[in-house]
Amino acid sequence: MRKIMVLGGSCGGHIAVRIARLGDYELGDIEVRKFPDGETYIRLVSNVADKDVVYVNSIAKDVNDLLIETLFTLETLKELGAKKVYAVIPYFPYARQDERFNPGEVVSFNVVARMLERAGIDEVWTIDLHLHRVEDISKLFKIPARNLTAVKELCAYMKEIYRLEKPFIIGPDEEAEQWARVASEYFDSEYDVLEKQRLSAEKVVVKPKHIRDFKGRDVLIIDDIISTGGTIVEAVKVIKNMNAGDIYVAVTHALLVKNALTKILKAGVKDVVSTDTVLSPTSRVTVAPLIVRELSKIGE
Amino acid sequence: MRKIMVLGGSCGGHIAVRIARLGDYELGDIEVRKFPDGETYIRLVSNVADKDVVYVNSIAKDVNDLLIETLFTLETLKELGAKKVYAVIPYFPYARQDERFNPGEVVSFNVVARMLERAGIDEVWTIDLHLHRVEDISKLFKIPARNLTAVKELCAYMKEIYRLEKPFIIGPDEEAEQWARVASEYFDSEYDVLEKQRLSAEKVVVKPKHIRDFKGRDVLIIDDIISTGGTIVEAVKVIKNMNAGDIYVAVTHALLVKNALTKILKAGVKDVVSTDTVLSPTSRVTVAPLIVRELSKIGE
Amino acid sequence: MRKIMVLGGSCGGHIAVRIARLGDYELGDIEVRKFPDGETYIRLVSNVADKDVVYVNSIAKDVNDLLIETLFTLETLKELGAKKVYAVIPYFPYARQDERFNPGEVVSFNVVARMLERAGIDEVWTIDLHLHRVEDISKLFKIPARNLTAVKELCAYMKEIYRLEKPFIIGPDEEAEQWARVASEYFDSEYDVLEKQRLSAEKVVVKPKHIRDFKGRDVLIIDDIISTGGTIVEAVKVIKNMNAGDIYVAVTHALLVKNALTKILKAGVKDVVSTDTVLSPTSRVTVAPLIVRELSKIGE
Amino acid sequence: MRKIMVLGGSCGGHIAVRIARLGDYELGDIEVRKFPDGETYIRLVSNVADKDVVYVNSIAKDVNDLLIETLFTLETLKELGAKKVYAVIPYFPYARQDERFNPGEVVSFNVVARMLERAGIDEVWTIDLHLHRVEDISKLFKIPARNLTAVKELCAYMKEIYRLEKPFIIGPDEEAEQWARVASEYFDSEYDVLEKQRLSAEKVVVKPKHIRDFKGRDVLIIDDIISTGGTIVEAVKVIKNMNAGDIYVAVTHALLVKNALTKILKAGVKDVVSTDTVLSPTSRVTVAPLIVRELSKIGE
Repeated sequence: MRKIMVLGGSCGGHIAVRIARLGDYELGDIEVRKFPDGETYIRLVSNVADKDVVYVNSIAKDVNDLLIETLFTLETLKELGAKKVYAVIPYFPYARQDERFNPGEVVSFNVVARMLERAGIDEVWTIDLHLHRVEDISKLFKIPARNLTAVKELCAYMKEIYRLEKPFIIGPDEEAEQWARVASEYFDSEYDVLEKQRLSAEKVVVKPKHIRDFKGRDVLIIDDIISTGGTIVEAVKVIKNMNAGDIYVAVTHALLVKNALTKILKAGVKDVVSTDTVLSPTSRVTVAPLIVRELSKIGE
Repeated sequence: MRKIMVLGGSCGGHIAVRIARLGDYELGDIEVRKFPDGETYIRLVSNVADKDVVYVNSIAKDVNDLLIETLFTLETLKELGAKKVYAVIPYFPYARQDERFNPGEVVSFNVVARMLERAGIDEVWTIDLHLHRVEDISKLFKIPARNLTAVKELCAYMKEIYRLEKPFIIGPDEEAEQWARVASEYFDSEYDVLEKQRLSAEKVVVKPKHIRDFKGRDVLIIDDIISTGGTIVEAVKVIKNMNAGDIYVAVTHALLVKNALTKILKAGVKDVVSTDTVLSPTSRVTVAPLIVRELSKIGE
Repeated sequence: MRKIMVLGGSCGGHIAVRIARLGDYELGDIEVRKFPDGETYIRLVSNVADKDVVYVNSIAKDVNDLLIETLFTLETLKELGAKKVYAVIPYFPYARQDERFNPGEVVSFNVVARMLERAGIDEVWTIDLHLHRVEDISKLFKIPARNLTAVKELCAYMKEIYRLEKPFIIGPDEEAEQWARVASEYFDSEYDVLEKQRLSAEKVVVKPKHIRDFKGRDVLIIDDIISTGGTIVEAVKVIKNMNAGDIYVAVTHALLVKNALTKILKAGVKDVVSTDTVLSPTSRVTVAPLIVRELSKIGE
Repeated sequence: MRKIMVLGGSCGGHIAVRIARLGDYELGDIEVRKFPDGETYIRLVSNVADKDVVYVNSIAKDVNDLLIETLFTLETLKELGAKKVYAVIPYFPYARQDERFNPGEVVSFNVVARMLERAGIDEVWTIDLHLHRVEDISKLFKIPARNLTAVKELCAYMKEIYRLEKPFIIGPDEEAEQWARVASEYFDSEYDVLEKQRLSAEKVVVKPKHIRDFKGRDVLIIDDIISTGGTIVEAVKVIKNMNAGDIYVAVTHALLVKNALTKILKAGVKDVVSTDTVLSPTSRVTVAPLIVRELSKIGE
């Protein structure tokens, strides 16, 4: 029988512990530290030989630092005899630059994918990766890749803690429809997305595609990510003006650059909730069960 | 005839300008900036198609950030049609970790070398790379690699500005002998290195291998690098106690972590001089001529 | 009647919004940003003239940056005509250095107190400030000062979310007794603190003062702060070995330096909960109601 | 007789060593370090009782961190019995914000001046402080204050190293005239400043006030500071188009934000030189002699 060891990088340790606890897997140990000159030292403290290793690390905020840490670790796992290596990157970076929009640009999304493959790993897993122009994660990677979603976990939390009953689900832009739809199924509730409508040469408004009045119902805004918070703040303003009840925000990845949280709260949101893919003040829902469930399938 | 374009990364731009000016090469342009979420945006503004590209970037201080910038750029150069790509990394990182000293360690020196090769470059050049246990740079890389030395440039500066005449050359430890020897040849002067001598079970002293008294002569300490400054400070203390005249320090790479410069000056050093491989308050000597001289050979 | 305006600094905005909403106070606006040269720009966007201003800012993590921001803002409030200025510093820094332990040390706790007073404010409020050797906050300040506690808010959350019934309360060291006592009153439950016991010249053990066996009961560790997490990890190890049920940790201020959270989870803690005095991945309890309750008294 | 002790903060240590060496003063020792939680620890290692203390610290780059370090240290010096305290702040921050340009702005230049005075120091010295709208440094401080200039030291270096003979001196804007004039006196050479001229409603050009052609003469651009380098780059472009010989840049304070140095070199400058008020890759001239000369006067 396959022996699984779970390992966490410096932005994945908290998830690794929870995966190991929940799935009753062995939890391995990695030492990561920085020398005064800025170089990273990494040691796989646990013996990984002949094991299937699940390495968990989000690549957010100190993006390049964590990317190097991840690549260094993955490259070494096989060298040390790991049988299979699953790279679980709950937050996968550089998704925006999936194309050469202007001549000469580095298409970093592809470059990162190539680097991961060359590190010799067997599979890549991620969570709510925003695929803008790439149709499917299998188009990005030559190795098996899975893109899980945490939207149901987020909805379950909102239901339990805030007792939300059939809230109106809103995706703050058209690309968010995929997540809004999942949430609306969970709540058995309607959903809509906001879109930009050009009124005249100078005037653009943001409006829901279909709905014109929320009739006092609570609204749950669902998206994959909050970065600077601009999109959400704009969405909240629009929704507030349409007779909404309480407004909540739930996203998978909360980067919350600078004072994004304060801006969103100020706009009139009741609460903001996210998962722990990226540790943030809004991290209330762990993605560990999601990964454990997926892990339970790989032995089959 | 081959057309050479010189490009500088965010820690190589100052050298690239000087190479282009000195060698009368075309100077290309790269845009590098950071998004608020920490991701790096890179665009090769100049058209590199069908050109031999010399890309210059030191990978020091924000090591992982610069490593990713370098890898992203190099990976893209060939994609955009560059004919040959010379990666000039004046300061090459992770030289310390060239072996697995303890089980499980990432041998980062090798991993970085592999990453560079996989980016598709044709040659790697560096300057005064400290090869600890790797005998020769050609053992590290499968592609052609050159390790230039800036010691003569440093000596020329010391001679011109401080009118040093036959200073006693000291390498602060045994691994510095290679640089001390070059300097002693330049000045036609003696050299020695410091070594640790065990006096008893408890007591270790640092002493020059051969010399016992400097007889009032000026001393020039030569090394490849100053990181925290500890080695140099210890060397200065030893030398001061042996009847030395003025003490100068010249190194290729001055990282000067925290208050290293103040510590060294405080120890009694007259002045500290370094090259511009890493920009630092002691950068007085450019390595551009060194690279131009080497470039002039590649067309032959 | 007195008009109160609530203002939030860059680490207090989220609390200010909640205070204003809860207490139905006017929420003012401050613009804070950095110039490329590292200088801070601050503008009080709202008119504060003739108002009683409650300025909320925690001084944690980028301690000196936030201290300067706070001092600059407070200094200017009176200049702009604010009638009364309440400086609410939920996390108050430099509490450790309240004495000159070695000759020549800066007693930074006192210096910060003096700086605040000189800024012309009327009152200082803080939350669970750890007074080590200063008996009472009124000994530190010449102006009125209040030190509120968030322990009951934390306990209420633990009870509601984790259905804790009479957990055994543990303070991880003797200085934590003050908070353990409050929690034990809330839960109507026993408490104890851990203490260092010297077994021999070489051997020190950490043990509860009184209890010898937890008999399967759940344990709630209560403290004011988690910094690197060392104290908590040690406490958890001791408690786990004494037949404890589930172990939870609740603290007011979660600084969570580096990977503190992962370390604590790894030690076997079920969950870690903190307030929002410092925004952290464990911030589940807002201190806003605490401050609103106190504010409601000042008009009386 | 008065005993002077020179002390250096974390951005002044290198100057303090040189002052002590040159003026044959006692060099004291301060320990400054950071705790993992971001708080600063400072200890005056040397005994300062009954001494006249010259404390040197530039407040640049990590501005607020260094401001707090400086204030903490100065506040403590008198407490520890120093007789007179001279705060030498070679780079003085927040000079830009010397007025309330928009309602509600913090006038940080004044606030910093007040904070320094309240720390109990006897005199403030600085170097080439850019007084924009404050006529004289004595208007800013209630205690004695001196604003020294390093322009002659810069000119002497340019003359010796680059053998500049009567270069044309250019101030890159009208506020730089004060420094250009000093340089022109040193070289016994002409000077001019650049100014913005409005050609039409849309078009503004930058041009020298008087000169129309440099007739192949070398140009030395003199200014107090390089921050992002924008002003200098624009000046170089203008000057290059007016038949200039070699162009050099000399400034007192080189902040060199991001890639400012590369931008300036790229614009066609032969070399950039600055003092060591702020440590930078262009720091070739120490301001220590300037301060020693001033110190020699205070005993008189």
